[in-house]
Amino acid sequence: MTQKTWRIGVAGLGTVGGGLLQFLSDRPDFAPAGDRAVVTAVSARNRSRPRPVDISGLAWFDDPVALASSPDIDIFVELVGGSDGPAKAAVEAALKAGKPVVTANKALIAEHGAELAVLAETAGVPLLFEAAVMGGTPAVKMLREAMVGDDVSALAGILNGTCNFILSEMEAKGRGFKEVLADAQALGYAEADPTMDVGGFDAAHKISILAALAFGCAPNYAAAEIEGIDQVEQLDITLAKDLGYRIRLIASTEKTDDGVAVRVHPSLVAFGHPLAETRGATNALFIEGSRIGRIFLQGPGAGAGPTAAAVAADIADVMTASRRPVFQSPAAILAPFIAVAPTRRVGKAYLRLLVKDQPGVIAAVSETLAGSGVSIDSFLQKPVEDAGGVPIVLTTHAIAESVLTDAIDRLERLDVVIERPRLLRIARI
Amino acid sequence: MTQKTWRIGVAGLGTVGGGLLQFLSDRPDFAPAGDRAVVTAVSARNRSRPRPVDISGLAWFDDPVALASSPDIDIFVELVGGSDGPAKAAVEAALKAGKPVVTANKALIAEHGAELAVLAETAGVPLLFEAAVMGGTPAVKMLREAMVGDDVSALAGILNGTCNFILSEMEAKGRGFKEVLADAQALGYAEADPTMDVGGFDAAHKISILAALAFGCAPNYAAAEIEGIDQVEQLDITLAKDLGYRIRLIASTEKTDDGVAVRVHPSLVAFGHPLAETRGATNALFIEGSRIGRIFLQGPGAGAGPTAAAVAADIADVMTASRRPVFQSPAAILAPFIAVAPTRRVGKAYLRLLVKDQPGVIAAVSETLAGSGVSIDSFLQKPVEDAGGVPIVLTTHAIAESVLTDAIDRLERLDVVIERPRLLRIARI
Repeated sequence: MTQKTWRIGVAGLGTVGGGLLQFLSDRPDFAPAGDRAVVTAVSARNRSRPRPVDISGLAWFDDPVALASSPDIDIFVELVGGSDGPAKAAVEAALKAGKPVVTANKALIAEHGAELAVLAETAGVPLLFEAAVMGGTPAVKMLREAMVGDDVSALAGILNGTCNFILSEMEAKGRGFKEVLADAQALGYAEADPTMDVGGFDAAHKISILAALAFGCAPNYAAAEIEGIDQVEQLDITLAKDLGYRIRLIASTEKTDDGVAVRVHPSLVAFGHPLAETRGATNALFIEGSRIGRIFLQGPGAGAGPTAAAVAADIADVMTASRRPVFQSPAAILAPFIAVAPTRRVGKAYLRLLVKDQPGVIAAVSETLAGSGVSIDSFLQKPVEDAGGVPIVLTTHAIAESVLTDAIDRLERLDVVIERPRLLRIARI
Repeated sequence: MTQKTWRIGVAGLGTVGGGLLQFLSDRPDFAPAGDRAVVTAVSARNRSRPRPVDISGLAWFDDPVALASSPDIDIFVELVGGSDGPAKAAVEAALKAGKPVVTANKALIAEHGAELAVLAETAGVPLLFEAAVMGGTPAVKMLREAMVGDDVSALAGILNGTCNFILSEMEAKGRGFKEVLADAQALGYAEADPTMDVGGFDAAHKISILAALAFGCAPNYAAAEIEGIDQVEQLDITLAKDLGYRIRLIASTEKTDDGVAVRVHPSLVAFGHPLAETRGATNALFIEGSRIGRIFLQGPGAGAGPTAAAVAADIADVMTASRRPVFQSPAAILAPFIAVAPTRRVGKAYLRLLVKDQPGVIAAVSETLAGSGVSIDSFLQKPVEDAGGVPIVLTTHAIAESVLTDAIDRLERLDVVIERPRLLRIARI
């Protein structure tokens, strides 16, 4: 057998880039279908920073765009990050130069995936991004390749390890969001600027990509409803627990006759449910299809080892000449993303009110809810110290989001209600 | 874009074959990368049997081997079943004729996979078998393609839905194996001859295939240690529960410096563990790798819909021209399967004794165990009505299988011990 060697150019030598160099250095025999992969050129911000693997023998490029279009590489690996700027310019340059691209960049694919798919398919080269979602857990390949014999109707999962770590810690230690976030930052589980993670934006990038793969539509990050975990209070974690639920940041998407909805919300998940039992930085995903039923996938969502393994698996896909559309169908006939208006969502909800400690409160609240057409599933009033009032918690049967919003507006106007009621969704899957 | 049409020949029109025809009839637009797939020819035992889809317009072959080598098909789908006979002859004929093969036949791949891989790779055509393991849950693709950037060290899972259904029912209803099996047969969850399922042979075929994919060695069904669930007693389910465990038929494989071990055993799994919480006919699999850590995959393991979806996904892989080795590395350099001797296994165990109700029994048992070098983790003596003696249950710390066997032999010879002690393994993953 003649063995071809593929020359890899890597832009970005942070955690994942370092992990990839380490992997290919540890496994010089890496040749999943006979061919070999060797990193021959790199680009990064700082040439002399200490790295796990010696890069002095590799060609160096100050500019990732120059690396991307270099005639001396066969595959371009983009690990720079960011939805625009040098990452986007470099990926475009590589595709235009007819080079296969492997990237871990979720923001780039979620925000510009459709146009990049056109570039890739016009050039006839793969654009792969397994590492962009769930690190080493192959959600992308599963949806792009293994689910084509099914009609996927919905996805729901935990796609941000930092948020799940924080929520798990808040529950386990009984501490507030800010304290736990500070700990997570000190331990390296959260970034110095945690906005992308705790604001839900990272999870929204990821579920936008998965929606495109599942439904064969263009990714549309701009249409995602996004709520992070920064407003989740210890009080809600405690009260949800009393009702038999755990709070998780659930990223979900579903396809209905109206279109596609992509959502990220802190949500209640019943004890014993696999998403409720997913703890720490682990990621998890449910795939629901009309033929297969339900598939559950769980694994590490980040880290040098898993993410670099996902990049290596994509490199293997390039080398084995798999020619798939970038999303579920060819970019030329990719369905437009028709967003469902958030007000059309129908689902169960958790409402937490803070009320004055006086007679008639329950009557006022329940009459208001009945007047709005909200049907109550469970109701709990429980004194909690230092809560600044008496908390009332209730869960509803499935109702339209517009009805819910109206009810919350009416409740807020009641004299006995101290602050705007807190809304959390109850996960559907 | 020019659209090519791939002509599919299907041999075997039972549950899965019927499901595939139904799928392609429901989805005339099935074209994952632009090309279409159309069934043009079929073969089955009985031409006139009622079927979900009209086959009168398709070419008919009495002989699957003739269909396999027909110049009028581009892909051969083998759904006949059986490790030898017409299934093997037809797959060989198709590969020798240079046709891609898709099969759901676990016995064929587990027992003859290595030689068929040579035929396929010599001809330069794919041999795909996603539907052979876990039905529509893509364990095969995950190990063959997504895990190549990792070093997989172990797999453990529930790969036979019939056994898991029976064990779940025995626990839920408190009924014996034979009664539950009869119910399962009446409901269609178990075959009239249930030997392949309850004897553990079906799970052993499947884990043999997964071991080959995970470790890049030839599949070696003959080397599998196999114990079914037909000897699992209600008494053990009850006593295991008292100790915090559920009994599951665990198929596992691990790679050590000594070689590869492939095992199927009824095993104890602690409550709360995802494998213990996998109920009914659902399948589940843990993948353990040195870089990725642990991935958990759960989904339906059988049924027309899921299995046909897996066959359709393989057809898509053929059409997208993915050229992978059949197992983890090219057949020409596939590592030999070096089996680890069962006696070298080290693990925790559950032992259940039936002893006479007389003084000194515990002393005699514990002295015997100490004499054999068995270290006890937990010990439970509990009166159970109609058990024919007093049950004693104990779990051990991790010990070598040879030490365990010696201890069981010694215990059996004690006067106070009524029957040979019952051994169940405690799952490692």
